[in-house]
Parts: sequence; C-alpha cells; structure tokens
Amino acid sequence: MAKDMTLLWGTGSPPCWRVMIALEEKNLQGYNQKLLSFEKMEHKSQQVLDINPRGQLPTFKHGDNVINESYAACFYLESQFKSQGTKLIPDGPAEQALMYQRMFEGLTFYEKLNVVIYYSFDWFVPEGERHESALKRNKEALVTELRLWEGYLQKLGSGSYLAGPSFTLADVVVFPTVGTVFRFGLSPERYPKLGEYHNLLKERPSIRASWPPHWLESPKGLDTLKDI
Amino acid sequence: MAKDMTLLWGTGSPPCWRVMIALEEKNLQGYNQKLLSFEKMEHKSQQVLDINPRGQLPTFKHGDNVINESYAACFYLESQFKSQGTKLIPDGPAEQALMYQRMFEGLTFYEKLNVVIYYSFDWFVPEGERHESALKRNKEALVTELRLWEGYLQKLGSGSYLAGPSFTLADVVVFPTVGTVFRFGLSPERYPKLGEYHNLLKERPSIRASWPPHWLESPKGLDTLKDI
Repeated sequence: MAKDMTLLWGTGSPPCWRVMIALEEKNLQGYNQKLLSFEKMEHKSQQVLDINPRGQLPTFKHGDNVINESYAACFYLESQFKSQGTKLIPDGPAEQALMYQRMFEGLTFYEKLNVVIYYSFDWFVPEGERHESALKRNKEALVTELRLWEGYLQKLGSGSYLAGPSFTLADVVVFPTVGTVFRFGLSPERYPKLGEYHNLLKERPSIRASWPPHWLESPKGLDTLKDI
Repeated sequence: MAKDMTLLWGTGSPPCWRVMIALEEKNLQGYNQKLLSFEKMEHKSQQVLDINPRGQLPTFKHGDNVINESYAACFYLESQFKSQGTKLIPDGPAEQALMYQRMFEGLTFYEKLNVVIYYSFDWFVPEGERHESALKRNKEALVTELRLWEGYLQKLGSGSYLAGPSFTLADVVVFPTVGTVFRFGLSPERYPKLGEYHNLLKERPSIRASWPPHWLESPKGLDTLKDI
C-alpha cells in the first residue's frame, strides 16, 4: 500500500515530521519520499507546485488523493488504515475529547513558537517591520503557552501521553513542536514535565525513525529559547 | 443528551459559529448556551476561565468533557453522535481526503482573513507596530487565498459543497469564514463561485438557525473587503 504514497518533505519542519510519525505508526514504511531543501526554495519548485498549489512541505499523495495539510494527512491515514499499526484515536469519549482538544491547542503552541524563533527572518517579518515590543510580547506569550502545557502534563502524571495512557494523534501532531522547543534550547530544568515527555517520546521507534536528519548530523541545537 | 452540553459563545465569531452549525447538524438542539460579549471582555470572565484557561470563545462542555477548540468540538460531536443527524464525514477515501484537506486549508483562509480585517485593532496589532507595507502584503495574500478557493469551487462545479456532493465537516468549519468575507463586503461579482456557495449554504437550516444575531439586527455589513 505504501508504494502508492509519495511524501515530499523538509528536514526539521514540524508539519512534515507529523506526517512521517503517522506513517511510521501505521506501519506504512516504504513510501516514496524525497527530501527537499527550504534554503534552496525547493518547496516552490514545479515538482511541489504540481501537487500543492501553496508550494509548501509536506506535500503528500496517496494514489490520486492529495492531502498536503499535515493534520489532514494524519487524520486521513488513521481513518484509511484504522486496523493497521497503532490505533491513534482512542474509543473512550473522555480520552477522545482530550485528544481532540490538545491536537488543536497544538496549532496555537506551534504558532506561538514560530513567531519567536523566526521573528528575525525576512521571510517571516521583513526587517523594517520588526519591533522589540512585538518580540517581547511574543516571548511572553510563548512562556504562557509553555506553562499551560507544563500544567497539562503535570495533571496527567508521570509517563503519560498528551491525552492519557495511550499514544494518540495528539502526540503525533504536538511532539514535533516539543522536539523543536528543546532543539532551540528550552531548559528542561525550567520545564521539567515537558522535558520528561520529550525524553519519553524521543525513544519511541516512530519518532526515532523520523528524527530530522540535520539534527542528527549536528546534534548541538540553538540557544534561542534558553532564557525563557 | 444536549441537556448535558453547555456552549459559551460570541456573536459573529467564526469559531463559535462552527460549533453551533455542528450542533444543529447533529440534531443537538436544546443545549445550554450563553451569549457573551467580546466588547465587554466577557470571554475573560471567571465563568469562561473556569472551563477554558485561554479565555476564549467558544467554550464548550459535554458532561465532564471540555472541548473548547472549535475544530476539536466538531470532530468530537461527529464522533460521539455518528449515527444521529447529518453524517459529516463521508465514507469514500477520495471524498474524505478532500474533506480533510479543505478543513485544514480553512484555517489558513481564516487566518489570512483576520490579518486583514483586524489589522487596525489594537488587540490585534498595537498602533505603533502597524505598517502600510504589512497591510498591503496581507491583502494580497488574502486575494491569492480567495482565488484559490474560487478555483476549488469552480473545479467542483455548480451546487457542490467543499468536498463534493455532500455537506461535510469541511463546510461546517469553512462556511463561517465565507459568511464573514461577504459580511465584510467582498464582491460576489468578483468572486462568483464563492458567492454561489454562500447563497447555497446560507439557506441551509443549520446555518440559518445559527446565523450571528447581530448580523440579523443590522443586516448591512461593512465594506472592508469591497475593493479586493
């Protein structure tokens, strides 16, 4: 089945990573894939634009079905391969409610992270439009966000996943953001529950198998978030 | 069952509207609800914060399950009441793929709309941080986005919903954005397919029943988007 699938992706992109984790969890190894370079603007290449008019990665196709949005691809894969690999949507209404809630809060978490780590990049905010006041506000909002997730994990107790005792779609879509905050220097001492969650999940086979290759090549991350 | 549900909402908020449409489609009328005022900052009131630490609307509860994120609530309702009311997730893989894809592109559409219509509001961008260049860029991005959706509808043909012949979760979550672009003065002559889609859906019972009350009170909208 996975031979019918093609993924165009970029290393270190949380949206790409989500889809790769979902594919691993659903035992869909062996799909066609191509690593493209954001630096070389390959996400705007004709190869991508032919499938994805937005010129973004991931770009994903299963047979004739195009599902480029990362959350969409994760939902689609779980729905199409329900009984294969890990069951990613729990049955119980309470765990399901929590899973959906955390999945979509995960988009806010990701956005609040991006506006801090990419603030000084021209493609994100052109130089003439940058303000110290905005960066300071964005950092404060990220701290609030991180504390919220720290509290969620605290409440669930040690060794828990984001929506309870099982690994779900919430972990598939949010873990790449958690991986990224630590790659950018977040202190696991200051955010111990997030640190513990990161340690628990980073050894999971699906996550190890999809770890961003350029993080493996240069294991030392950045220190953008070290003081927050 | 709907007696176990409580929705705190604000009029004209697309995220609130999504949940209200989903509730109508699933025949869950009769839920407890309270209309709160954004102007009076009631979304930051204790009543909201007790259920929703983000202090946002919608705030939604079913029994003990809290699902405040609008997309999460729509997914949850469809999953918990699968065989009640309208079936909102189609069975066919192709239609399902398209539905998921459009649902999540819908978040980009909504965001690109917000950065134009709220750009001059202090809570969105503080006065000292506003730039004509940013507003111009945001407007161009919104035009690109609107043309993309115009093209999607064109390709599906007259009378189609966003993911094909049936009304799905894609319509539940994206229609409120479409309603809003026309409320803010978008020209249906310039965007005829979006105009046609708007006309088709605005008479649908779930959408009529949940139409923002302050739009009914003052039917004349704004002209923010009339020239784009």
